[in-house]
Amino acid sequence: MTTLEVRTRQRIETIDITGLVQEAVEPDTDGICVVYTPHTTTAIAINEGADPDVAHDIERNLAALFPKKGDYRHVEGNSDAHLKSILIGPSETIPVEGGKLLLGQWQSIYFCEFDGPRRRRVFVRTQAET
Amino acid sequence: MTTLEVRTRQRIETIDITGLVQEAVEPDTDGICVVYTPHTTTAIAINEGADPDVAHDIERNLAALFPKKGDYRHVEGNSDAHLKSILIGPSETIPVEGGKLLLGQWQSIYFCEFDGPRRRRVFVRTQAET
Amino acid sequence: MTTLEVRTRQRIETIDITGLVQEAVEPDTDGICVVYTPHTTTAIAINEGADPDVAHDIERNLAALFPKKGDYRHVEGNSDAHLKSILIGPSETIPVEGGKLLLGQWQSIYFCEFDGPRRRRVFVRTQAET
Repeated sequence: MTTLEVRTRQRIETIDITGLVQEAVEPDTDGICVVYTPHTTTAIAINEGADPDVAHDIERNLAALFPKKGDYRHVEGNSDAHLKSILIGPSETIPVEGGKLLLGQWQSIYFCEFDGPRRRRVFVRTQAET
Repeated sequence: MTTLEVRTRQRIETIDITGLVQEAVEPDTDGICVVYTPHTTTAIAINEGADPDVAHDIERNLAALFPKKGDYRHVEGNSDAHLKSILIGPSETIPVEGGKLLLGQWQSIYFCEFDGPRRRRVFVRTQAET
Repeated sequence: MTTLEVRTRQRIETIDITGLVQEAVEPDTDGICVVYTPHTTTAIAINEGADPDVAHDIERNLAALFPKKGDYRHVEGNSDAHLKSILIGPSETIPVEGGKLLLGQWQSIYFCEFDGPRRRRVFVRTQAET
């Protein structure tokens, strides 16, 4: 298993980690790759990487669903971040062939920061098919 | 690994692919099955298949959260589709026993098209337990 | 594979099952653990377990997105539960090392009931890395 270090620079940030994850996949392996974030105010997503406006639209429209100041009881003031993390989810599982992630032509793997800036970790585990 | 071909007929469509996925699972295998879509405006979901009104309610209520014309910067006019894809997610992982998907009695596997009609692909990979 | 039995007491309830899942993981295994609910009005989530207000905020804000009485066609009166289940999703996949779930310091595994009270099941499968 490989642990990636991700440093975020803003409260809300969408960072393309496709290259880092691909480097961490075991070479010549057929199977699956699990990308997992162990934090409660971040998430892993897969979507279009070519146009940065897509990341912008995600950030803006999730903020509309769960505004920073909303109907929240949690006193740390980051309930919006917890809610987004739960909806997007802490992991993605991607098929692997010959050591290569079988992402679609337009797919990138995103690390989603919802309560930065912070130092974050991402676990990448390749499971070989038997 | 098996690649399914799915042809969608409408912009937004929810297609039950449970039978196709079950056929693609390796016989007599114990483990897990990963169902993955390599597109950025589609998703894989699991929910009730018995009543077609459930799919209708999903389509209609997701459209209420992310309307086709909203506060979007992405110029292709399909940001609503990207957002839905991210929230539902590109894959599902299902336990398998004796080559059979361990879906619940009411669970079906859905291919969710959010920006069709198009020709789409779905990857199905069985990982045997060692 | 282990099947957990979960009995829910309310219509909407968020139950911490981290301890039960950890007990079900195969000892001394490196790999992944898949936690899967076979029901269509429940979900598996991962988020903060330390502060019960986080679960409260999840329940309340999901109810704001999908109210019990909304624009639904499904006649059983639980479309809100189906929608929440689809968005959160029926499973989580967690890396395992030495038989231990690699959850972050603040992460708990939640069974989310959206249409209880009922008797529910959760499948826990450990897949060893080869």
